[in-house]
Amino acid sequence: MDFTPADGIPVLERTPATLRALLAGLPGPWVTGNEGPETFSAFDNVGHLVHGERTDWIPRAKLILAQGTNRRFEPFDRFAHVRESAGKSLIELLDEFARLRGDNIALLRSWTLGERELALQGEHPTLGPVTLRQLLATWVAHDLGHLAQISRVMAKQYRDAVGPWRAFLPVLDR
Amino acid sequence: MDFTPADGIPVLERTPATLRALLAGLPGPWVTGNEGPETFSAFDNVGHLVHGERTDWIPRAKLILAQGTNRRFEPFDRFAHVRESAGKSLIELLDEFARLRGDNIALLRSWTLGERELALQGEHPTLGPVTLRQLLATWVAHDLGHLAQISRVMAKQYRDAVGPWRAFLPVLDR
Repeated sequence: MDFTPADGIPVLERTPATLRALLAGLPGPWVTGNEGPETFSAFDNVGHLVHGERTDWIPRAKLILAQGTNRRFEPFDRFAHVRESAGKSLIELLDEFARLRGDNIALLRSWTLGERELALQGEHPTLGPVTLRQLLATWVAHDLGHLAQISRVMAKQYRDAVGPWRAFLPVLDR
Repeated sequence: MDFTPADGIPVLERTPATLRALLAGLPGPWVTGNEGPETFSAFDNVGHLVHGERTDWIPRAKLILAQGTNRRFEPFDRFAHVRESAGKSLIELLDEFARLRGDNIALLRSWTLGERELALQGEHPTLGPVTLRQLLATWVAHDLGHLAQISRVMAKQYRDAVGPWRAFLPVLDR
């Protein structure tokens, strides 16, 4: 499946409501439990997605579309959300994510990207030349990867509670 | 984290709305794409969850609570949903799942399970003796495992589309 705005945007649009349906109002341990030291809880995952809305996808897309002399992306700080999310509640983060994502999708739609724009290139600090099409596909896959991660982290909170069923639940040992 | 109804039921309650927020109205390839022969698409995952509501969790819990002479569970058919879902739309399956899950949670709540009931045992056809507490924890972890699977299967539809970013997205190669 190749990235097209018609296929990709519907996934991007659904992520805020999906996370809210999954997480809002859950007992605390589901939200704060992680997979061990230096790993993300559900809360951390949402904070990381918020940070990406501000600094990753749209700023990089703008850099590509501008086709200026500097097409090299700023490195993305994968732990900046720890600082930025401190003191916020999960609901605040979910609200912030929904608002930022809504704005970003409106902007993305307003660009009415065609084949020409999608083929334009930027430079990733470690991966080298990448196209706008690849960046936008990655935005979608990144959402889904974090949804998978949140589900896995939550499932692992019951790794011992399931007893012998652990053998049938590969998600508990990934 | 040990299983308690107070912690586990909120997750079980949220799964139908989470799946609806994620999947309802998406372009077809997201719903029907899978990971290769004999693997589940998002549609298959929802069908499998529907089948579990009918034949797995609650029937097994009833068998345990009855403490009759036969406490051995019927084997669960992990491919029955293929037959049962044939000809149905995703929306029909999502509606069916929400209805069955709602009924099952109402029943589960009506049992007001305490320590004594949660410690009762049944016999799994291959795993041997298991407690009601383990069965209910597994119900929760199973939901989350399938949500992780759906997210992963969807992400993989963009495995090639992301280009060099594949190296940063472990979900694409799980």
